[in-house]
Amino acid sequence: MGKKNKQFVEKVTAMEDDFAQWYTDVVKQAELVDYGPVRGTMIIKPYGYAIWENIRDEIDHRIKETGHQNVSFPMFIPESLLQKEKDHIEGFAPEVAWVTHGGEEELQERLVVRPTSEVLFCEYYSKNIHSYRDLPMLYNQWANVVRWEKTTRPFLRSLEFHWQEGHTAHATQEDAEQETNRMLDMYASVCEEILAIPVLKGRKTDKEKFAGAEYTLTIESLMHDGKALQSGTSHYFGTGFADAFDIRYLDKEGKQQLVHQTSWGITTRIIGALIMVHGDNRGLVVPPRMAPTQAMIVPIAQHKEGVLDKAYELRDRLKKIARVDIDASDKMPGWKFNEYEMKGIPIRIEMGPKDIENNQVVLARRDTGEKEFVALEDLELRLPALLEEIQKDLFDKALAHREEMTSVAKTMDEFGEILESKGGFIKAMWCGDEACEDKIKEEFSATSRCIPFEQEKVSETCVCCGKPAKELVYWGKAY
Amino acid sequence: MGKKNKQFVEKVTAMEDDFAQWYTDVVKQAELVDYGPVRGTMIIKPYGYAIWENIRDEIDHRIKETGHQNVSFPMFIPESLLQKEKDHIEGFAPEVAWVTHGGEEELQERLVVRPTSEVLFCEYYSKNIHSYRDLPMLYNQWANVVRWEKTTRPFLRSLEFHWQEGHTAHATQEDAEQETNRMLDMYASVCEEILAIPVLKGRKTDKEKFAGAEYTLTIESLMHDGKALQSGTSHYFGTGFADAFDIRYLDKEGKQQLVHQTSWGITTRIIGALIMVHGDNRGLVVPPRMAPTQAMIVPIAQHKEGVLDKAYELRDRLKKIARVDIDASDKMPGWKFNEYEMKGIPIRIEMGPKDIENNQVVLARRDTGEKEFVALEDLELRLPALLEEIQKDLFDKALAHREEMTSVAKTMDEFGEILESKGGFIKAMWCGDEACEDKIKEEFSATSRCIPFEQEKVSETCVCCGKPAKELVYWGKAY
Repeated sequence: MGKKNKQFVEKVTAMEDDFAQWYTDVVKQAELVDYGPVRGTMIIKPYGYAIWENIRDEIDHRIKETGHQNVSFPMFIPESLLQKEKDHIEGFAPEVAWVTHGGEEELQERLVVRPTSEVLFCEYYSKNIHSYRDLPMLYNQWANVVRWEKTTRPFLRSLEFHWQEGHTAHATQEDAEQETNRMLDMYASVCEEILAIPVLKGRKTDKEKFAGAEYTLTIESLMHDGKALQSGTSHYFGTGFADAFDIRYLDKEGKQQLVHQTSWGITTRIIGALIMVHGDNRGLVVPPRMAPTQAMIVPIAQHKEGVLDKAYELRDRLKKIARVDIDASDKMPGWKFNEYEMKGIPIRIEMGPKDIENNQVVLARRDTGEKEFVALEDLELRLPALLEEIQKDLFDKALAHREEMTSVAKTMDEFGEILESKGGFIKAMWCGDEACEDKIKEEFSATSRCIPFEQEKVSETCVCCGKPAKELVYWGKAY
Repeated sequence: MGKKNKQFVEKVTAMEDDFAQWYTDVVKQAELVDYGPVRGTMIIKPYGYAIWENIRDEIDHRIKETGHQNVSFPMFIPESLLQKEKDHIEGFAPEVAWVTHGGEEELQERLVVRPTSEVLFCEYYSKNIHSYRDLPMLYNQWANVVRWEKTTRPFLRSLEFHWQEGHTAHATQEDAEQETNRMLDMYASVCEEILAIPVLKGRKTDKEKFAGAEYTLTIESLMHDGKALQSGTSHYFGTGFADAFDIRYLDKEGKQQLVHQTSWGITTRIIGALIMVHGDNRGLVVPPRMAPTQAMIVPIAQHKEGVLDKAYELRDRLKKIARVDIDASDKMPGWKFNEYEMKGIPIRIEMGPKDIENNQVVLARRDTGEKEFVALEDLELRLPALLEEIQKDLFDKALAHREEMTSVAKTMDEFGEILESKGGFIKAMWCGDEACEDKIKEEFSATSRCIPFEQEKVSETCVCCGKPAKELVYWGKAY
C-alpha cells in the first residue's frame, strides 16, 4: 500500500540542538504546511491557511481604511514588458519561471510568471492616468508570485508564495514619500499589535534595496536564534518607472508631469517570523489577537454524565466573546493537550466532573504553562483579560529578547566576536561605502539590515574601514 | 504623448443592435475590467473586484459554515502528475500553459500552470488519508487558474480566471453524492438569493461532463440575449481518481477501501452572468444584496450653503443601515447620474436646497427609473425596504424573462425555428444517445445544457432520432 500509519504528535527537535530542524518539525507537526510535488513549493494546510487569513484580513482592512482599492492583475508578463526598466529586469531575470508554450503551440514571445507586478501596474497607469484629477491612484492586490529560488524552506523562501502588493502613483514626491512611510507604519503596527513581533523601522542601503527603487524602507524582526528576518518593505520609486513607462499627467497649470510611485508588500514569510519569534520546544505559540482558535475546551472524563453537555454549553456561551472551540473527540485528554500545545492555541480550558461540581474551570496558558481556576460566572471577564495579558506578555518577551540580542561593535574584531558568540543585531557605524558592506558580508556572512530611523552615534568611525562614520546601521545574519 | 483625454461616460451600444458590443461597452464603461498585456488576460479594476469580493465572501462563509476548510495548493503541476488520470489529461492537455525554464535553466520535467487542481489534491490525499477517522476531508481553495483558450472575452472566457475549487474525499458513495448535491444547492442559493439570477438545476450529459467525473451537476442561467451560461458545477468522481492515485483508507473493520471524491467550482464568469442578466442600455444593474455601494448620495446645487453639510450628515447616518456613499466631487450632477447608472448602483439619493427645506430626499431606482420623495425621518425604514424590493423585482424580472424564453420542441424543425426566432432554453426529449447530441450541435450550434432534476415528459420520442425518449433535456446556445 505504501501507506504509513497516521502520525501521532511527536516531540520536536530541541531548538538549542538544531534550530533549522526545530523549525521544520514545528511547521510539519503543527500542521501548517506540506510539500508540493514541485521542488520548493508548499501546500498551506487548513491551520496554516487560517492563520494567513487572519493576518490578511487585518492588513486588508487597514489598506482599505487608508483609501486603497483592491484590484487583480494577470500573472503573465511578456518578456519585452519586463525589460522596460533596466534595474528591475536585472534584479529579477535570474529568478523567474518562463512559460514558452500555450496549448500545443510555441509562443511567439516568452512569458514570465510574475515575480512582482510593477511593470503590469506601470503599463496600466501609463494608459489610465491622464490628469491630476486621477491622482493619487492607490491600488493593491492579493496575489501569488513565483521566484525560482535555489534553496527553499516553507514560508521563508518558497518558489511560489502569497503576498499583497500595493502599487500607487502620486502627483508629487512629497505625497509618494508620505505613502511609502504610511504603509511601512501600517506593517509595523500589524506586526507589533497583532502578531506581537517587535520591529525595527529603517531604510535599506542601496545594495539591499529593491531592484528599481530609489530607496526601500523595511521592518526587521529578530528570530529566536538571533537571525534577522525582513518582515515587510515599502519602496519609493521616484519617477524612474514613470520615465521608463511614460506615465504622465496634466497638472493644474496644464503641464505634463511624471508621476511619483511607490510599492509595498508583505508575504507569507511573516508566518515564518511568527513561528521563530514565539515558538518553543513544545511547538508553535500563536498570539491571541490573530489566533484562529483563542481557547480550546478539553473536557476531562467526558464519558461521565453531564460533562459533555456542560462543556458544549460553555462553548456556546464563550463563543460570543472569543474564538472558542471544543474537542469532544474520543482521544485521550493528554493527547489533546499535546496537539493544542503543538498548534500554539493560547488558552486551554479544562472542565471535568470536579470542576462542574465546584462551578469552575481551569485556564491553562500555552506560553507560560501557568494554570488558574476560574469560577464559571467570571469567565466573561477573565477570559478576554487573560487573552490580552498573553498578547502583551508575548510582545514584551520578544522585545526583551531582541534587546538582549542587540550589541554594539566598534571594530571588526568586536563584530566578529559578537556574531560568533551570540549573533543577534549588531549596531555599528558605517561610512556609507558599499565596499565596507561587501567586506562585512564576505567576512561574516552578515548583511546590513537597515539604517534605523532612530539614529545614534555609537562611535566616530566606520566599523570596517575606520574612516569617518556617516550613519548607524543594524547588521546581522538574516533569513 | 500618446495620451487621450479622460473619457467621459459615453452611451453604450444598444443591446438590440449588437449584444456582444453592448457587453464589451458595459464591461469597459462601468469600469469593471481592462485588458492585460497578454492576449486574453484581464485586469479586474476596483469596481469589478469589489463585486467579486462580495460574491466571494458570500460563498466563502457558506463553504465554512458547511464544515469545509480553506487551503492553498501550488499552481505548478509536473507533467507526469497531470497524466495520472487518463480522461482528465485528455480533457485538459490541449489548453494548458507550459513552464519549461526556471531562472536560466531548462527544467528536466515540464510544468503545467494549473487549469484545475484535482491531481494536486489527489496526490495530497493519497499521502494524508489513512483511516476512516480522517474522513470526510473537506478542502476548498480560492485560486487563479489558466486555460489557453483561443477566443476570449472578459469574465466569460479568459486565459486566466479566479475561482474557488472545492475538493473532498468521503468514506462512502452516499456521503460523496450528498456533498455533490449540497454544494450545487449552495451555488443555486447564492445565485438566486444574492445575485438575483434564477438557475436551473440538473445533470450534464456524459458528453458535457467534467473530464474525469462520473457525473457533473450544473446550474444554468439564461442571459438577456437568450443564450445560456453554465454558472457553477459540482462533480461526483466516484472512485476513479482514488484508483488512479491510490487513495485508500482503513475502514472500521480494518479493510482498505477507496475514497469517493467530489469537486465543485464557481468562477469570475458569474460576473458575466450578472451583467447579461440584469444590465440594460444604460449600463450595469447590480442587485442590492451584493452591490459594493447600495445607494449613492448626489448633492444638488452643492455650492449652496448647507447642502454639503447636510449631505455628509445624511451619509454618516445612513452608513449604519446600508452601504451608502456620497459623491461630493465638482462634477455636474447629471454627469454623476450617468456614472452611477452605468455602474448600476441600485439607488441614487438626490438632495438639494429645496429637499433640505422640505426635510426630504429623492430616491431614484436604477432598475426602473422610478423616483419617490421620502421624508428624512423615514429613511431608516424606507431605504432598506426599497433595497429589498429592488432585489426581489430583479429576480422576478429575470425569472419572467427565462420563462418567456423557454420553449418546447418536439421535432427538429420546431427546434430550429425556435432557435432562429427567439433562442432561449428549449425543452426537448432525448433518447440518451450521444449521436443525437452531436447532430443537434452540428445543425444548430446548440448544446445540451442539463438534464433537469425536475423532469417532465413533453413528448414520447427523442426530438432528434424519433426513438423512444429517455429523459427531458434543456438545450440552448451557450457562452
